[in-house]
Amino acid sequence: MKNFFSLNDILDIKKSISEIIDLKKAKNDKSQYINHRGKTIGLIFFNPSLRTRISTFRASKNLGLETFFINISENTWSLEFEDGKIMNASNVEHIKDAARVISQYCDIIGVRSFASLKNKKKDLSEHVLKSFIRYSKIPVFNMESSTAHPLQALSDIVTIKETSTKKTPKVLLTWAPHIKPLAHAVPNSFIRAMKKMNFDLTISNPKGYDLDESITEGVVVNNDQYDSFKNVDYVYAKNWSSYQNYGKVYRDFDSWTINSTKMNLTNNGKFMHCLPIRRNVVATDEVIDSSNSLILKQSENRIYSAQYIIKKLLENE
Amino acid sequence: MKNFFSLNDILDIKKSISEIIDLKKAKNDKSQYINHRGKTIGLIFFNPSLRTRISTFRASKNLGLETFFINISENTWSLEFEDGKIMNASNVEHIKDAARVISQYCDIIGVRSFASLKNKKKDLSEHVLKSFIRYSKIPVFNMESSTAHPLQALSDIVTIKETSTKKTPKVLLTWAPHIKPLAHAVPNSFIRAMKKMNFDLTISNPKGYDLDESITEGVVVNNDQYDSFKNVDYVYAKNWSSYQNYGKVYRDFDSWTINSTKMNLTNNGKFMHCLPIRRNVVATDEVIDSSNSLILKQSENRIYSAQYIIKKLLENE
Amino acid sequence: MKNFFSLNDILDIKKSISEIIDLKKAKNDKSQYINHRGKTIGLIFFNPSLRTRISTFRASKNLGLETFFINISENTWSLEFEDGKIMNASNVEHIKDAARVISQYCDIIGVRSFASLKNKKKDLSEHVLKSFIRYSKIPVFNMESSTAHPLQALSDIVTIKETSTKKTPKVLLTWAPHIKPLAHAVPNSFIRAMKKMNFDLTISNPKGYDLDESITEGVVVNNDQYDSFKNVDYVYAKNWSSYQNYGKVYRDFDSWTINSTKMNLTNNGKFMHCLPIRRNVVATDEVIDSSNSLILKQSENRIYSAQYIIKKLLENE
Repeated sequence: MKNFFSLNDILDIKKSISEIIDLKKAKNDKSQYINHRGKTIGLIFFNPSLRTRISTFRASKNLGLETFFINISENTWSLEFEDGKIMNASNVEHIKDAARVISQYCDIIGVRSFASLKNKKKDLSEHVLKSFIRYSKIPVFNMESSTAHPLQALSDIVTIKETSTKKTPKVLLTWAPHIKPLAHAVPNSFIRAMKKMNFDLTISNPKGYDLDESITEGVVVNNDQYDSFKNVDYVYAKNWSSYQNYGKVYRDFDSWTINSTKMNLTNNGKFMHCLPIRRNVVATDEVIDSSNSLILKQSENRIYSAQYIIKKLLENE
Repeated sequence: MKNFFSLNDILDIKKSISEIIDLKKAKNDKSQYINHRGKTIGLIFFNPSLRTRISTFRASKNLGLETFFINISENTWSLEFEDGKIMNASNVEHIKDAARVISQYCDIIGVRSFASLKNKKKDLSEHVLKSFIRYSKIPVFNMESSTAHPLQALSDIVTIKETSTKKTPKVLLTWAPHIKPLAHAVPNSFIRAMKKMNFDLTISNPKGYDLDESITEGVVVNNDQYDSFKNVDYVYAKNWSSYQNYGKVYRDFDSWTINSTKMNLTNNGKFMHCLPIRRNVVATDEVIDSSNSLILKQSENRIYSAQYIIKKLLENE
Repeated sequence: MKNFFSLNDILDIKKSISEIIDLKKAKNDKSQYINHRGKTIGLIFFNPSLRTRISTFRASKNLGLETFFINISENTWSLEFEDGKIMNASNVEHIKDAARVISQYCDIIGVRSFASLKNKKKDLSEHVLKSFIRYSKIPVFNMESSTAHPLQALSDIVTIKETSTKKTPKVLLTWAPHIKPLAHAVPNSFIRAMKKMNFDLTISNPKGYDLDESITEGVVVNNDQYDSFKNVDYVYAKNWSSYQNYGKVYRDFDSWTINSTKMNLTNNGKFMHCLPIRRNVVATDEVIDSSNSLILKQSENRIYSAQYIIKKLLENE
């Protein structure tokens, strides 16, 4: 791998998942440190982060790396992304220069940059991540971009593999309410992950909330949430804003909150969410805090997914 | 110790003080590093910090720890603390989830969260620190909370022990002017410290500024500042807002600034303050810069107090 | 060296440049680490930074140092610089106390503090850097102050030495347009550097933009930009605001943008800029991206300049 933009950069995902699980099992074996001590990783944030910031820090330290954080526009200059621009407005430095300079100072870069949800074409172009990849001389990985959050998806697969007794678990990705328009990165990557693993995926969302068809292709979309819960092994809850009517939110779906009544329709189903979760909006406390909730396992697995990807990139494997 | 919330978590304070002094003496002996190398400490700030931020960083590095800082609401999501809340307002993540996730990524957490000075009941409940302690699976220590600043108090005791020729020095805690309402954490912890050490403590403050009686119990409170300075060995200056009329400030006490005339009433008394200090408001330059001022020794001792507490927590001693 | 405020703190600049080039050549030799492992460096920013922040981080790590960043007024208290001030306004802590405290917690400090461009006398007094130097008990170095950016200038000399075939290259420092008033630190230090190296320097700027005469003394200033480009080996572009009419900007000089027509007048001249650069305002994309552009080499050399200075200061050489 030269860069890690999406799950498509992984050639054999089943092999990768198995290697991540091995990394986790060997977490107390410090010998993995040796190869990368003295290298430097730069973690660049255009948006807030808790899990990603700290799990990637921990992953980096597990590999012996020196780590710095850059919060763009707070610690440093605001960036221009348009080629050929006459830079007489607010942006002080062009990504072309910033990315090339940063890549002289470290050995690998992670970048987080959310969708604007205002300009669909620009968001889909992934101009921020793609610019870092284009101009950096070193490996770049995605810590959540406009359209993909592949480190989360890897952790989600590992979590299912660790808990499933079936080879082909029945998985439901269900839309859930929220108070703000959210991006499509997490559901996109989760769907790609389930398809690559050949898990039995269904999506449930209200009308008007269908995701990008090029991603959901081949997956049943059920607008009846109650019906969709029946007999599934895993319920992955996530809000997203409209994709067709890009970034818009329809206010009539409060009843889509995940609760115990719905969970009781499943096959003793596990509950999953990428966090942060708005409690009693996306899902009830009862569901989130039940023994069937896997949210902490998902977040713990973020360490090993990041560690695996960083290791592979540094070793150009 | 499982957690370090206040001085009450220390069983034998005199033994601890003596061990902190030993740590300081051995500061050039790097062998103390060995046990904790590879562990990770998370330092979480809801408020600004200079001394605490850097002294705890240095203490952590003295122990070989990897260190990350989180500035809540700046680097990450704003947190909800109310149980059972329908999270449809501005807070994005519940402390229950944030604390459990963070505690998966590191080995020990320090938290700073000042009093609001608006809601007495909430401040006294210490909901921020107590929530971190409740939900974290790893040790949590107090880097100044609503009602306590025990790392400062440990440094203050060490400073007195290092400079006092008496076994039972005569100590004055005196209120001093300020331009903003300040919290009670520092005086509370200082009083607890002096009582635990059996030092001869007096408090001097204007009427209306009496501290929490459950803490000052057994200590003489003198409203005559001049009288209180007579013959003391240590003068600890600190502003605080009203405790009874919670968070309020009375504007008639500018004459309480500590100056040389007052210091001359003491027994060649040493001057102490936790910093930051508003010069020529709390105390005059002459007092702060005199050879009897211990402010730098106090701040230097913050390294060893933090190092001691972190070490004890990691070793669960 | 006890402190590194400007190039004047370096006794033999030619020897230093040669040692920086040696450091760069030995970048894969980790033995330089050994002496300083376990020491701590504090990097203090009053202003944004990308190159300086990361290159100094990398330099510090190359020396085995523990590194912390402080963003003043964001992570910590705002600072007062006036002696004897009654501190009843917005600044919470006096530099006298902050600098002395910080210097107890680490072994060396770097400080960045730009000119205000509002108060010439105050800017020229360099009160921020000079206060840190005055009150710190440990070495302090300049990461760009009101009037000097010596780490940039060292990198610039190294870049010229690495690329020049002449012993005395012909160098042009040319003013270029910008949309905001900028400070004089970079041109000041560049001029000092060229003079110390005995390079053949000319300055070109519009009328009204003459720099501090005590610095430009002995250097030809040409108000005809086209004429100044003729036959030079290096073109160093930089905007600055008026020095006489302090901090003011005259809006009639858009034609001063560096373009290929001008570069074609040179002796196959190299293009230099300290970055960040406003593309197509300061210089055209064509110039910045040409094979004669040295901007990336300049920024890469920031690592080794910083590493050299930090090493010398820690070794008090």
